[in-house]
Amino acid sequence: MNIVVAQSGGPTCAINASLLGVFKGAMKSRDIDIVFGSLNGIEGIINDDMIILNDYIRTYMDMEQLRQTPSTLLNSCRYKLPDMSDDKTVYEKIYNTLKNHGIGAFFYIGGNDSMDTVNKISAYLNELGSDIKVIGIPKTIDNDLTCTDHTPGYGSAAKYVATTVQEIVRDCSVYSINSVTIIEIMGRDTGWLTAATAVLRANGEIAPHLIYLPEARFSVQSFLSDIRRVQQSRRAVVIAVSEGIELDPNDIPSEIKNETSDNFGHRYLSGVGKCLENIVRREIKCKVRSIELNIMQRCSSHISSKTDIEEAEQIGTAAVDAALSGLTGKVMVFERVSDNPYTVVINSAEAADVANRVRYFPPEWINAQGNNVTDKAVKYILPLIQGSQDIHYRNGIPMHFRIGN
Amino acid sequence: MNIVVAQSGGPTCAINASLLGVFKGAMKSRDIDIVFGSLNGIEGIINDDMIILNDYIRTYMDMEQLRQTPSTLLNSCRYKLPDMSDDKTVYEKIYNTLKNHGIGAFFYIGGNDSMDTVNKISAYLNELGSDIKVIGIPKTIDNDLTCTDHTPGYGSAAKYVATTVQEIVRDCSVYSINSVTIIEIMGRDTGWLTAATAVLRANGEIAPHLIYLPEARFSVQSFLSDIRRVQQSRRAVVIAVSEGIELDPNDIPSEIKNETSDNFGHRYLSGVGKCLENIVRREIKCKVRSIELNIMQRCSSHISSKTDIEEAEQIGTAAVDAALSGLTGKVMVFERVSDNPYTVVINSAEAADVANRVRYFPPEWINAQGNNVTDKAVKYILPLIQGSQDIHYRNGIPMHFRIGN
Repeated sequence: MNIVVAQSGGPTCAINASLLGVFKGAMKSRDIDIVFGSLNGIEGIINDDMIILNDYIRTYMDMEQLRQTPSTLLNSCRYKLPDMSDDKTVYEKIYNTLKNHGIGAFFYIGGNDSMDTVNKISAYLNELGSDIKVIGIPKTIDNDLTCTDHTPGYGSAAKYVATTVQEIVRDCSVYSINSVTIIEIMGRDTGWLTAATAVLRANGEIAPHLIYLPEARFSVQSFLSDIRRVQQSRRAVVIAVSEGIELDPNDIPSEIKNETSDNFGHRYLSGVGKCLENIVRREIKCKVRSIELNIMQRCSSHISSKTDIEEAEQIGTAAVDAALSGLTGKVMVFERVSDNPYTVVINSAEAADVANRVRYFPPEWINAQGNNVTDKAVKYILPLIQGSQDIHYRNGIPMHFRIGN
Repeated sequence: MNIVVAQSGGPTCAINASLLGVFKGAMKSRDIDIVFGSLNGIEGIINDDMIILNDYIRTYMDMEQLRQTPSTLLNSCRYKLPDMSDDKTVYEKIYNTLKNHGIGAFFYIGGNDSMDTVNKISAYLNELGSDIKVIGIPKTIDNDLTCTDHTPGYGSAAKYVATTVQEIVRDCSVYSINSVTIIEIMGRDTGWLTAATAVLRANGEIAPHLIYLPEARFSVQSFLSDIRRVQQSRRAVVIAVSEGIELDPNDIPSEIKNETSDNFGHRYLSGVGKCLENIVRREIKCKVRSIELNIMQRCSSHISSKTDIEEAEQIGTAAVDAALSGLTGKVMVFERVSDNPYTVVINSAEAADVANRVRYFPPEWINAQGNNVTDKAVKYILPLIQGSQDIHYRNGIPMHFRIGN
């Protein structure tokens, strides 16, 4: 039989490693022939827009490069399947593409939206009496999928964030004046990635002095008094803040609100760091800077976590094994056996249980003041950022594997 | 005799390597005893606020960590010495500190402001008949010092910028809609760092499709038509723009001008990327994102250039040799002997010739349309970003060498 793999949702550093894991798992199986790659997620299957991956990934060095290439080799999409009862047309198109290409299994690497797709397509195929298997492979830097200890992509993003925040701490501590540096970190709903800045304490770092997650109630007044308190003993205050914290609109001075929300129809969500910067400048009157780590958080594969990338590849291969063993409608997940030595096993969960759900940062890992995380969070995150990839360079720049441009 | 070393100006990834170079050069000399570190640049000498570096840098691993630590171990300052004719008091304080600690040579690692300090202090000491030597060691990510082929710190910043832009290119090419990504890169006066994004073409990368430097006249109308032209063949347009390009205020729609310049007394300089983002959104009506690489450009030592870091250390040691050979009032400089094989020698130049001057990006390396750089720029930059440091990690995070916090 042949198989098809697709990638969906926002890019990460690990999503191509999972693609490689599927590819290598297929190569090792006598039951699998061609590995198709669907372009633009599920859209490629709907529109029969696929490539034969075996024609592209040919050498050992191709695989090495693919593993260290961020983002999605096969592009991505944000397409949400309609309910089967509403519209069967698109399901029929999917089935036709799979059938016409002799495909026995479809692997979808993505977040909780993609697991919704896995759930729906497998249900449709079951109803049809088809034995085509559908398996989800998790990925998201947000680490917010249920049923799994963590998600591929999170460890690398966490390693980038911690490494970069440490460098920023060095940078902003050199002048002998009071300063506040606010670092805005991704995570619209959950604080997993922002919490990763706390791992610096394992190396004796005191900064970031304050950490704010969406899971804790945020108040501008407490924020300002937190800063004033830290300033009693520190010249340079460094703050990690999740993009997803909610500011009470009444707490935002009107001229700041105008700047950051109204003029161009943006909510302040895209610039909560800038908004807080302006508030601090106005209220505390010291040097203030806000830094948005922006998409570098999800694509800086030059500093990816070896643990993360290896696990991402393993879970891709495990998905192939799961399909071959007859499973369908499942998502592959990690179960942590122990923190030290760090041990995980790969299991599967129902896609229906992962689809469209969010796993929040545990409230018991947030301190009582709501401005930092506990050592339990550090213990959880540390194993996920261990090890560095040996990057292959050409002309001093990491080599990327591309198809087209 | 004893010596003292200080660091000044904006942080880089290489400034501690130069400090290490001075320290190791001193250790190897039978003529040098104690190596003092002046805290907060020249201010530490003025106020007799110095540490004995030998008490802190004790082991091989201390040196390894120091080399990979960004920013300035001894903090920094932006202090500009008054003219000797205006005020001798501060010069007398400097002389007293040097004399009281038996210091025979002062090494100042910094940019063109610091070379002004080197020039003034050496002139003062000469006038006094003192034989204390003063030597400048260049550093700046801006690469804009005269009399030298390039500056320590530039190669690492260039490697970070090129690596990161390549990752951003991967990230923003995954969706099947038109998009424009504007990456704002440091360089208030000169485009050296922004030009470094062009090295990606050595690896077959087509992006960034447009590169704008302060040395070329910028017009919003040409900018928009450049984008429209690229969009005829590319879905995802990626643009590198120097923070220092000058926009004609008449070209900025008033509501954007308000947002980015007036409300908080900022000039748009600090956010030219955001300003252009808003212009593109308004005029071209496609998905637009601006990304500020911010201070990560100067402190991301986890991806520093081995060539840069090694040269930074060598030029520090060469400064010690220069002082021991009797030179004073000089700045150490690189002279490039050949591009391939890349060969440089270390010479010295008059501090007076480097002080307060700016070396601009050569106009002949900018294309006729003023929206990209030529292959000659790539040939110049490539050798400076070669090689990667072997980073020492603890708990998955690069180890930093600190004194206090």
